[in-house]
Amino acid sequence: MPDSPPSDLSRLCVHTVTTKKWSIEEAMDKYAAAGIAGITVWRDALDQRNISIIGEQLRSRNIKIVSLCRGGFFPADSDSALQAAIDDNRRAIEEAAELGAPSVVLVCGALPGQSLERSRQQIIAGISAVLPDAEAAGIQLSIEPLHPMYADDRSAINTVSQANAVCDQIDHPLLGIAVDVYHLWWDEQLEAQIRIAAQKKRLFAFHICDWMTPTTDLLNDRGLMGEGCIPIRQIRSWMEENHFTGFNEVEIFSNRWWQADPDDYLQQIKSAYLKHS
Amino acid sequence: MPDSPPSDLSRLCVHTVTTKKWSIEEAMDKYAAAGIAGITVWRDALDQRNISIIGEQLRSRNIKIVSLCRGGFFPADSDSALQAAIDDNRRAIEEAAELGAPSVVLVCGALPGQSLERSRQQIIAGISAVLPDAEAAGIQLSIEPLHPMYADDRSAINTVSQANAVCDQIDHPLLGIAVDVYHLWWDEQLEAQIRIAAQKKRLFAFHICDWMTPTTDLLNDRGLMGEGCIPIRQIRSWMEENHFTGFNEVEIFSNRWWQADPDDYLQQIKSAYLKHS
Repeated sequence: MPDSPPSDLSRLCVHTVTTKKWSIEEAMDKYAAAGIAGITVWRDALDQRNISIIGEQLRSRNIKIVSLCRGGFFPADSDSALQAAIDDNRRAIEEAAELGAPSVVLVCGALPGQSLERSRQQIIAGISAVLPDAEAAGIQLSIEPLHPMYADDRSAINTVSQANAVCDQIDHPLLGIAVDVYHLWWDEQLEAQIRIAAQKKRLFAFHICDWMTPTTDLLNDRGLMGEGCIPIRQIRSWMEENHFTGFNEVEIFSNRWWQADPDDYLQQIKSAYLKHS
Repeated sequence: MPDSPPSDLSRLCVHTVTTKKWSIEEAMDKYAAAGIAGITVWRDALDQRNISIIGEQLRSRNIKIVSLCRGGFFPADSDSALQAAIDDNRRAIEEAAELGAPSVVLVCGALPGQSLERSRQQIIAGISAVLPDAEAAGIQLSIEPLHPMYADDRSAINTVSQANAVCDQIDHPLLGIAVDVYHLWWDEQLEAQIRIAAQKKRLFAFHICDWMTPTTDLLNDRGLMGEGCIPIRQIRSWMEENHFTGFNEVEIFSNRWWQADPDDYLQQIKSAYLKHS
């Protein structure tokens, strides 16, 4: 298993942000024509749309809706700001339900100058506040640990170990973890923590891309699989050895690729997926 | 202790790279005039100099030589490249001895596409190979763990935990750790791992600067203390509670600050040090 690439496209999912030159309407036609099996929809792609109709259109094209991306960003410097974050996460859960997405990805947030411990407490409070909504809607919430280079203002959860700790503390079957190779590949505890997450039935999602050398931008210089140094196949094997059977989601923020011809890019995503994932 | 700034400049050290507009000759006069107590000398500052004379000139100005920066970069894709790295580290140890620096900082290295485990094995082999030279010269070697965003090509050692593991494996009194807040501030294990390092008499050095939000460049957008989100004083208190009595070394790579007037910058370093460290 560790040495074999995916045998087909049946578990390939693409995030709308990856091909953000396309509207959601264009993306669904292009993905369907290219045989992309799954989609994770970013909320901005749904702006001013009838969300349930978008969901129907995706299903009618046999594209599986994997997740809605993204909620989170709970850390706040006032009670009213934390409440606003909670309200926004409730809307995300509603949107996921309308779309027919089974889960919402959480980028948990951080606040420069506020301690990471305090941010983690607010993250736990925020997730706990919205879990009744998730329960009522039957929507999973997936904590996505972000790379430590985003610990200043994007996520106080930077390892699977920390995500496991938050899940332990809240302890709810609808709360789990999205493993993204970009954020986590460097962590020597990754395999062990994936195993723990699996034992607790928390392996909800798997995101792939690659780490460029040099990386010229902290946010938008990710690579297509095979362009960088991440042992993607090895990490995928850890997921699968631990009985993860979900999609391999291609989530690439790249100024370089966003400038490319999107039809050509989608073909390159498919071939990189089959060769380097 | 956690809430008090440094009471004076007696433990302030500046890295030559911080004020790299100045030659080493200019820097030593400027530092002496400004009352900077210590200097860590980067090897490029010694290019085409008589190193022992530079050492004498620093001592005659009452500037304490804290470290020579830097050796390391052991990971290699061939035996001859690893041997070249070992030879270069031997030269660094010789240079430190000529200069009168008691230690060499090691940025251990990494190689894109080579597993971090393999790189760590080469790091251990490389350090082991040069320790007899360090012993003969009486020079300490300080492993500096780098931020995980440098795990691709600069360091396979990304936490104090990993540095402690390497030190455990080699187990030599001249091998220790340089704690740099920029690389390590996000790690929830930092305090515990500093304590372990202290118990094993490995707390060799302490580097300070700050983390900017946003950070616009992975290498050269560090902040002056107080400009960013790192809890510098808290981390310093962990060092001091564990009996670290060495210098607080200001090591700032910043395209922005490098463009500033260096005399003004040095004054700002002093005042930021007294206010925000």
